[in-house]
Formats: sequence, C-alpha cells, structure tokens
Amino acid sequence: MPPLEGLLVIDLSRYIAGPYCTMLMADAGATVIKVEPPQGDDTRSLEPAVVSDRGAEVSTYFLRMNRGKRSIVLDLKDGDDRDLLERLIERADILVENYAAGVFERLGFGAQRVFELNPGIVYASISGFGHSASPMRDRAAYNIVAEYEAGVFFQRDPAAAPAPLGPPVGDMFPALHALSGLLMALHRKQRTGVGGRVDIAMYDSMLSLNELRSSYAMIYGEEWDPSAHPFYSPYGVFPVKDGHVCIDVTTSGQWEGFCSAIGRPDLFRMPGMETGPQRVERFEEIIKPPLDAWLSGQTRDSAVAGLTRHRVPCAAIRASGEALTSEQATAREMRVPVRGEDGVVVTTVGNPIKVDGANGQAAAAAPELDAHRDWVLKSVLGLGVVAAGKEHG
Amino acid sequence: MPPLEGLLVIDLSRYIAGPYCTMLMADAGATVIKVEPPQGDDTRSLEPAVVSDRGAEVSTYFLRMNRGKRSIVLDLKDGDDRDLLERLIERADILVENYAAGVFERLGFGAQRVFELNPGIVYASISGFGHSASPMRDRAAYNIVAEYEAGVFFQRDPAAAPAPLGPPVGDMFPALHALSGLLMALHRKQRTGVGGRVDIAMYDSMLSLNELRSSYAMIYGEEWDPSAHPFYSPYGVFPVKDGHVCIDVTTSGQWEGFCSAIGRPDLFRMPGMETGPQRVERFEEIIKPPLDAWLSGQTRDSAVAGLTRHRVPCAAIRASGEALTSEQATAREMRVPVRGEDGVVVTTVGNPIKVDGANGQAAAAAPELDAHRDWVLKSVLGLGVVAAGKEHG
Repeated sequence: MPPLEGLLVIDLSRYIAGPYCTMLMADAGATVIKVEPPQGDDTRSLEPAVVSDRGAEVSTYFLRMNRGKRSIVLDLKDGDDRDLLERLIERADILVENYAAGVFERLGFGAQRVFELNPGIVYASISGFGHSASPMRDRAAYNIVAEYEAGVFFQRDPAAAPAPLGPPVGDMFPALHALSGLLMALHRKQRTGVGGRVDIAMYDSMLSLNELRSSYAMIYGEEWDPSAHPFYSPYGVFPVKDGHVCIDVTTSGQWEGFCSAIGRPDLFRMPGMETGPQRVERFEEIIKPPLDAWLSGQTRDSAVAGLTRHRVPCAAIRASGEALTSEQATAREMRVPVRGEDGVVVTTVGNPIKVDGANGQAAAAAPELDAHRDWVLKSVLGLGVVAAGKEHG
Repeated sequence: MPPLEGLLVIDLSRYIAGPYCTMLMADAGATVIKVEPPQGDDTRSLEPAVVSDRGAEVSTYFLRMNRGKRSIVLDLKDGDDRDLLERLIERADILVENYAAGVFERLGFGAQRVFELNPGIVYASISGFGHSASPMRDRAAYNIVAEYEAGVFFQRDPAAAPAPLGPPVGDMFPALHALSGLLMALHRKQRTGVGGRVDIAMYDSMLSLNELRSSYAMIYGEEWDPSAHPFYSPYGVFPVKDGHVCIDVTTSGQWEGFCSAIGRPDLFRMPGMETGPQRVERFEEIIKPPLDAWLSGQTRDSAVAGLTRHRVPCAAIRASGEALTSEQATAREMRVPVRGEDGVVVTTVGNPIKVDGANGQAAAAAPELDAHRDWVLKSVLGLGVVAAGKEHG
C-alpha cells in the first residue's frame, strides 16, 4: 500500500515550494487536488517549453512539479467558488498554500477560519518570511530573495558579485521542511484528533541550510572561505584526460587507500602527514606532484575505478543530462516520463523517497487545467454536477 | 504537545545526513537515542572548535547536529552490546542509520533481521547510492561525491573547475527526504500495524535537487547557463553603496512596481517591454541605465525599502553571520544556544519546522559521550544497571 493512500490534500500552491511538497505526497499515494485560478498556475506558461505533435508550445515547468495531481479551477474572488473551497477544506486531511503571508487570509481563509471549517485539518503555509510577526513578514519573496537574505550564495572571488547557487534551494529545501512538518502534525492528529498549523518560512529554511557557514562566522568572527577546505586533504576537484574528478579523503583509512591507489603507499608511512590539517599544510609540496602524475594518465572512469578499489570517496563530475541518463539513475528509477498538456511527454526526475522499494510514480501525468472538475464535485463533494456546475475559462 | 512526543528513535547515524534528520525529530519531541562507537561519533573531534572555560578544545560540529539527543556507547563488534542494540530495536518506533550500503548488514543488522526483531519498526537508511542493486551501490560517499555524480555543482566560467555549492546540500537535502519517508511510513504503520523500509540515496536526492538543470538538458540537449537568467528581467545582483542587492521581477505587476520604485513609471507603458524575454533582450539598453542611476544613490536598506514599497521581490545580500544575528532571525527564533562537552555553549541555527507556533528547542543540549547509558538501560530497557553494566571508554 502506498504510504499516504487515502489522504486528501487540497493544494493551493504555485511555482515550486508548494508544488514540490505536494508532488512528493502524490508520489506517495495521496489524492492531491490542485486548486487553480481561472488562468491556471502561472507556471503553465513559463519556459522551458516543448512543442507538441500538434505544434503547440507546452511549458514543462508545470509538468515537472505537478505529476499525479488533479486540477480544479476555483476563482477565490467568487462567492460560489469560495463555498466550494470551504467544502473541500471540510473534507481534507491536509491543506497547503504558498501565497505571500496575509494573502490567503484576505481571501477569507485565515487559519482561524480554516480550523473552524475543519478542526482536524493539518494546514501548512510556505512563505518567504513566515506568518508570525516579524520585520520582513509582508515582503514578497522568490527563492533567491530568501537565499540572499539568509546568506546563502556562491562567492569565491570577493571582487565578483555574489551568485545564486543554481538549483532553487530556496524553494526546494523549504518544500521538504513543509512536508516533514505536515507529516509530524498528521502523526499527532492521529493520536489526539486535533489538527495543526505548520508555518514554514523559506528564510528560516535557508538559515538552516547555511548552518555550517553561519556557525563558522559566529565562532570565528569571519566568513568561511569555501575555496580552501580547511580540515581535510586531499580534497577537491582535479582534472583528468576527459574532464574532472573529485576526491574527498577524511579518515586515516581513506588516506591509506589514497596512497595505495596512486601507487605511493610510502606516503602513508611518512611522518607529519597523519592528520587532515597536516596534509592541508603540505598538500602542494608532498601530495600534489604524485597525484597530478597519476591523474594525467587517467580518465574520469579509470580514476574513479582505481580510487574506489581502495574505498576512497570520489566522483566523476558529470553534466546534468549525463547524470540523469546514467545507468545509476536507471537502476534507481530516477527518470519518469510525465504526460502533460496536448499529449506531450517529457522525461522528469523521479521520486527520491523510496518506501519498501517503491517510489510510487505510476500516475505520471500532470493534469490539464480544470480536468478533474466533475470528479471533484461528484466524488469528493457528492454534488450533482449540474447544480454546482459553473463554466470556467 | 510536541508532534513527535512519545516516539522512540534509535539513531546510528554520523556526520550530517542522519544526524540532521534525527535532530529535527528531537526538536519535534521524539526521544532520540544516539548509539555511538566507543570512540564516539567522528564529528566529536572535527573542526571548527571552541575553547571551554577549562581550556579544552571542543568541536562544534557534533554539537550543531545533535542537540536534544541522548547518547549511549555500544561496540557493535561486541556480542553483549549487539544484544543491547537488538533490545533497543525491539522497543523502537524508528531506526536511522547512514553507514555505507552493506556495512550495517555485515554487523548483523540487515533489514531482514531488523524486521524479525520488530515488524512494526520504521527503518531508514541513508547512503550514497542506495541499498537496492545498482552500479554504484558499494561506493563510499560524502556529500560532494553525490553532488558531483548527479551534476550538482557551480560553474559559470567553463574554463574554471566545477566547484561545490558551499552548503552540504548532498547531506542536508537527503536528510529531509529521509525524514519525510520515515513519517510517511509511520503514517501507514498507524493504520496497518506494519513497519516500513525507507531507502534514501544521497545521489537520488541530488538528482531531484538538480531537476531544473537536468530537465533543461533533456529538453534542449545542452546545459543550462545560470549566468544569464533566460526568462525574467530585471533579474540579478546589483551593487549599491554598501554592498549588493538582488532584484527578481517575474510578473507584470512586479514590472510595474519596479518602474515606479526607480522613478520611471513611463517605462511600464513602453511598448515591446511587456514580457520577460522582451525585457531580457532590451535590459542593457533600456533598463540598466536608469536602474544604475537609481541604485548609485541607495544603500542595501534603502533600496530594499524602496522596492518593497512597490511589492518588488528583492533582497539585501547578507553575510552568514549578519543573517543569523538579524532582527528577522530573532523574530523567527532561529538562533538557539546549545550546550556541549565541557560546558561550552554555542549559538546554533534553530528549527525551521514550526508547528502551532512552536519550534521545540527546549532541550538544547548535545549529549556527552555515553551520558545516558544508565537511563537507557533502566528506563528504556528495564534492566538492572549492574547486570547489564559494562565499562566503556
């Protein structure tokens, strides 16, 4: 049985932070009803796009974050549609929204109203700076706003502008804090019958991600310099004939394995090289010359094979597409084709949460806008479609 | 009531991926028993360190990842201690380990044995490449190994070596997938009585984090270039008098707000500037000159205040220490003092998972090695301490 089978999730979220959270719930067997405004989730029209067989440009953004969900259009400025949302909230186990703080409340769905409708509901909000009182509460935020305010960015050259990391960590990391918080509150609800309110700030989440750097700054009074790893050696990225590999020696056993792998077991017995900081100190003089000599004859694959034989943590550095199409990704079922609007099918990244060997990606379609209206009205709300029917664009 | 109060978690994990997962459970009220080898978790001796009042060097690494847990030493190569672990597993709700795949099994605790001992247990393993059959299954992995193999790295200049992002996303992101998977399986257990096996690969988790980039590569056949954001404008990092700010205009309303904020409402009415791609195209010519002129008179705070008044998503770019000591971090209770070995107290980053307004950081001490041995034997296992007692270093 999929672990969340039988749960009804009402999903008012857009972009990534909410949708990634609820997609993982859909992968785990929950019934996720995505409530969209009349024009649909904004990401239905965002790049990158693919062209369907019939020549239509179809966004893949929406499709990548909304597989396995069902869609209904509700105009929350319309009284009848607000009533329908209230009925859905009454029946739901979980509610997720990622409006800016205060917006859902102004639409008539403050936490108080939500819990009046359903005291057992578990209700998560994901916002830039959280719903509790704080100086930044009302500011609009996308991922990089939360990242930069929390000190999460890439900057090696102090003269260069601080750069975003690349992956939208400011969305995806809080999505997982929200998912965890929802499931924690759900656990408590099964014992007490009482629901719970989960208040996730992308900003808090980024502070948590940044804890190594900020702790370092608090302890030493200066920012951590990621360009030199201060504690381990050999550590870093090195060129080989066809690209780069990384090597990450932490323990004494790994240091011994490294020395054997590069054909210099004598280095392991050299005094004054026992600890990481000692090896950091003497890396250029003692370690780098024989390492460079060894690597100059290696490819990514041969270097990784040679180091791995001696249990040295290492990696071939792979482009994104190469990684997703690798045999490893195949073996772990990390590619899933998802069908979207106008029949397009796109390969997306699978579910990393495996429970009892299953990753629950059977229902791999992202819904067309309002596709499940009749089903929601009839099967979830028990309404006659004619009585409740309203036309939506 | 803290959401996970009453749950017993046996934690055999080290470094970050496991300990961050179980720390969030401790923050949420679970009883987490950290099982350590006789020499303790390796991170008890890793930098960065602080000096105690008595002059001892105390690692902060352990302390930052293990607040609120209890410690017992068990030597898993010793028969009596293995028996004690079996008794703990019999009583536990949750088991977490992050040995390399196969190691815990060789110690006598394969999944089959664990479920024989306790069919209702929820058991998560976090490893580099997962426990199921795969080409990389048996490779040792730290965070950057999983990151690089999955295509997660920073590289703007194709001539420069690919760099790690900085925060250990390869540990912290899978920690949250594991936490979510554990709570999903726990939810199912409460309905079926049957436990579950959660198999998290840091590699899978990094593929998931990288989904924007890998999807882009799959669709367009080339790697995404993060140096130019292809869809939105104005977007990016800009200098002001005392540092940098970021601006992230996505919607038409934000574009209108931006034009008003910089004192050029006429730009909003200029034809051919309505869409993101149009503004990307004409940014240098049309937008950058008045933006630079406006920013040249601004500080981080004044620029953010001016843009925020018009609901433009923006951020002051803050160093890690500045962020963690900000009023915003204070308001969100994101600093927590944690007491560690030899009485040292260090400020660490608080819990981003807020349930019903609480973040559950009351028990903010990280345990001294083996500090809860008597308590575990007496109160958890119901044993007389003398009978079960063994001396450990």
